[in-house]
Amino acid sequence: MYEGIVQELIDELGQLPGIGPKSAQRIAFHILQTEKFDVTRLANVLLEVRDKVRFCEICGNVSEQPTCLICRDPRRDPTSICVVEEAKDVVAIERTREFKGLYHVLGGAISPIDGVGPDDLRIRQLMQRLADNTVQEVIIATDPNLEGEATATYLSRLLTTLEIKVTRLASGLPVGGDLEYADEVTLGRAFEGRREVAH
Amino acid sequence: MYEGIVQELIDELGQLPGIGPKSAQRIAFHILQTEKFDVTRLANVLLEVRDKVRFCEICGNVSEQPTCLICRDPRRDPTSICVVEEAKDVVAIERTREFKGLYHVLGGAISPIDGVGPDDLRIRQLMQRLADNTVQEVIIATDPNLEGEATATYLSRLLTTLEIKVTRLASGLPVGGDLEYADEVTLGRAFEGRREVAH
Repeated sequence: MYEGIVQELIDELGQLPGIGPKSAQRIAFHILQTEKFDVTRLANVLLEVRDKVRFCEICGNVSEQPTCLICRDPRRDPTSICVVEEAKDVVAIERTREFKGLYHVLGGAISPIDGVGPDDLRIRQLMQRLADNTVQEVIIATDPNLEGEATATYLSRLLTTLEIKVTRLASGLPVGGDLEYADEVTLGRAFEGRREVAH
Repeated sequence: MYEGIVQELIDELGQLPGIGPKSAQRIAFHILQTEKFDVTRLANVLLEVRDKVRFCEICGNVSEQPTCLICRDPRRDPTSICVVEEAKDVVAIERTREFKGLYHVLGGAISPIDGVGPDDLRIRQLMQRLADNTVQEVIIATDPNLEGEATATYLSRLLTTLEIKVTRLASGLPVGGDLEYADEVTLGRAFEGRREVAH
């Protein structure tokens, strides 16, 4: 155990995800001992984040304005909406440069075990966005796991009541991966979704 | 990439040791999205650490006072000093409850590759502490790696000029480990340092 405030810093850091007691200690000592490390800067960024960052009123993405950079961008295609679980998924998809439409961040996935039901997600807001018939395609891009699949199924059922094309991201073998290391579910999906080779 | 301040937070977090870009992103979103996470508290602890924490004037351990808890403790044995590389080594040794003497934190180890020579460590301060003949034993507890060994060798040569017992922590098989997984250097040391079994 350390003297007062050092232990407090270790405890605070240890509450962050993926940081155990050993890492928290290492980080605390880095902060203490590295002269070039600017503690004030980190502290100020944290406070600024608290004050400035909000969630986009339209899509739920993180934003410093009432609406996010993507929703404000007139070059984005307003006829397709990609539904994701978290704001970090938006960044992952943006990196592919494959998608030029808008997003909708649910804020999680349906998970009865964690007590997360459809009403805890931003599904009502999604339905409101679809009400004016601008949107022609909803791409469901929830995670390819139990909760993500449950959410996708729930959403696709809900959306069949509307005259909107609903698609789901393809499952299959990860590019650059080894077939022998693929789990059976992924491999099964890859078979299911097999395509004819052009010749 | 994220909007301004969120990316700044990710960048700042990514500068901490052991935190890559993915972890930094996960932590940033945890801070953003977890309502119960107290950003202000973490920021304030960081600022308090910057203002309060200094290094013990005697031993170089972290401290909120000019001298640390251990140096201030009259129950500690002033006749033996354990020399360690970093303040976190003090905590590790304190946990064993084996040592009742005082410490001396060098602030690193001799490493020509990293440009760290004897003058960059708190060796002069150690020699000053030994000048009044109170100390009878110096236990060298630098890390059992190349830099630690070099530092130990340098120190032990320096200390032979004084009438002080110099010891080094034992190397050998880690308790609870498997002999077959021990590397050859460790196993060699374990042979070298073998002791006769009492019977």
